[in-house]
Amino acid sequence: MPINSEWDLLDRITKQIRSGLPEHLPDLLTGIGDDCAVYRLGPDRFGLFSTDMSVESVHFITGKSSPEDIGYKAMTGNISDVSAMGGACRLALVALGVPPGTEEDYIASLYKGMTEAASMAGLAIAGGDISSSKELVISISIYGETAGYDPVLRSGARPNDTIYITGSLGECRAGLDLLMNDDPAGMTAYRGLTEKHDRPPCRASIVEPLMKLFKPTAMIDISDGLLSDLGHIVKESGRGFLLKEELFPCTPLLRSYCAEKGLEPENIFLNSGEEYELLFTSAARPGEAAGEINGVAVTPIGTILDKEYFIEKQGAKIPVTLSGFDHFKK
Amino acid sequence: MPINSEWDLLDRITKQIRSGLPEHLPDLLTGIGDDCAVYRLGPDRFGLFSTDMSVESVHFITGKSSPEDIGYKAMTGNISDVSAMGGACRLALVALGVPPGTEEDYIASLYKGMTEAASMAGLAIAGGDISSSKELVISISIYGETAGYDPVLRSGARPNDTIYITGSLGECRAGLDLLMNDDPAGMTAYRGLTEKHDRPPCRASIVEPLMKLFKPTAMIDISDGLLSDLGHIVKESGRGFLLKEELFPCTPLLRSYCAEKGLEPENIFLNSGEEYELLFTSAARPGEAAGEINGVAVTPIGTILDKEYFIEKQGAKIPVTLSGFDHFKK
Repeated sequence: MPINSEWDLLDRITKQIRSGLPEHLPDLLTGIGDDCAVYRLGPDRFGLFSTDMSVESVHFITGKSSPEDIGYKAMTGNISDVSAMGGACRLALVALGVPPGTEEDYIASLYKGMTEAASMAGLAIAGGDISSSKELVISISIYGETAGYDPVLRSGARPNDTIYITGSLGECRAGLDLLMNDDPAGMTAYRGLTEKHDRPPCRASIVEPLMKLFKPTAMIDISDGLLSDLGHIVKESGRGFLLKEELFPCTPLLRSYCAEKGLEPENIFLNSGEEYELLFTSAARPGEAAGEINGVAVTPIGTILDKEYFIEKQGAKIPVTLSGFDHFKK
Repeated sequence: MPINSEWDLLDRITKQIRSGLPEHLPDLLTGIGDDCAVYRLGPDRFGLFSTDMSVESVHFITGKSSPEDIGYKAMTGNISDVSAMGGACRLALVALGVPPGTEEDYIASLYKGMTEAASMAGLAIAGGDISSSKELVISISIYGETAGYDPVLRSGARPNDTIYITGSLGECRAGLDLLMNDDPAGMTAYRGLTEKHDRPPCRASIVEPLMKLFKPTAMIDISDGLLSDLGHIVKESGRGFLLKEELFPCTPLLRSYCAEKGLEPENIFLNSGEEYELLFTSAARPGEAAGEINGVAVTPIGTILDKEYFIEKQGAKIPVTLSGFDHFKK
């Protein structure tokens, strides 16, 4: 049967691999199924391991984004996997597939972007591999650590936990639409949206204060979209959720763009991927001051329920089905 | 300038990245330029990190090798990078690029081969990523450790050290030639060669006794070919070498194949890549018993010199130039 769903394939492979796990690796605490694999290095120290592949025409379009931005974004997406476990990044490995005829300067620019993102997260590019390939492939793997506290899994959300999001969501998707629709007027008027798409924020620098203030019970980075990624948390935690649309911190720029295009900003907010903001749940009740960490908004947008999925729109609780971007779904 | 040499590009990127290394990562002992990056985890414990990308039509041909063999070989090549530092493998991450229309069973078989190799090295596949792509891409990154001794770098070879090779070399290249030349008669007569090409040995299980017996001063796995990989050792160590052809442990099967095809087995021995045998230098003088570890031959094939590169052929010392497979060289 040809692959028709990324999630179905991942389920099958996960089962296959779990059944083949060596018995003598008791220090591997969490394998496939979270943002990072967690390996115990000591009583109070954990290694975090993650990998992500970015492929030309799937994750980026070389004619639409600069190599610096492509490199920056690929690295940021990897960094956010470590951030989503509450960890600090240490080092990254970069494996590149490069089409023949590619300019050396292009590759140097790609690395410039990756190095920029890496230095924001305090990590070093410590190794890599390079091969020829038909299309540009950027495969990054990243190593981080938590020391002094346990990594935050997707599975720890409990009923009545508050659901928080860092920054804002939606602009990356709107920026992508502008880029794909070849809309020069729109791209001029809403330059901030395409810029956000090309350079989504790196939240590594707020992870430590966020961990202290909120003691997250579950966390994930927004890579597929809020609904899909919250779906991972509630599925792994065996819980439900209630999101309140009126709480969504949509930016004025996103609202103005949506007004012009006849779109609902809340809908874009729910489904915009590759944002790399942190979505987490917390039972802590930090004061008003916690609405912002180092200038980054941290906004409550809903509550974990015992079960069932709802979005509250203008006072009405609407049941929702979960979805997300699937590379193989037609 | 379009890329015309993998090595030139790697040099440029390495310089660029080294200049951007964060100052506060004193625990990153070795970055780009060895089989693995080395990160100090404690006074006497080191984390080893490596990544390798295998691309369809470059590293394997889906019509020529089974998915199990392709997966097995990709994983073995990664494992040998950790073995080449004297380390033990702990876990691997697998990022796959998969062409649309690929059968689910094909991917399951690929993982079956990877899991087989992984279990021989005692490591777990602990995470990964999957994306669509034009051609099949397998990007593996691996984490290993040494505890109780320092990782073996490429740079430690000293004059008068003996050069050793595990197992044998040459059969993988001969097997590849048979596969590429569509030679059914040859493939029947020399089935062992194509089998060796598809399933090169995994030497992870002899690393610990090898470290104890030989205390290697420098080590590398054979991925590009003996001449090229020994070249990395002598360049990083600032030394030269003398290889003695009469000592090369060419197998009877390779000799018989070469006799039939009018080839020099020693020449194939010198240039056969993706063998994943371990090449190391040692000042230890272990007894005769060290000629074999757990059934794997360990053969002295030459000596490290102060400078200059020589191969001794029938009593004559012939100067050599170093070369190796370059993905971008025309």
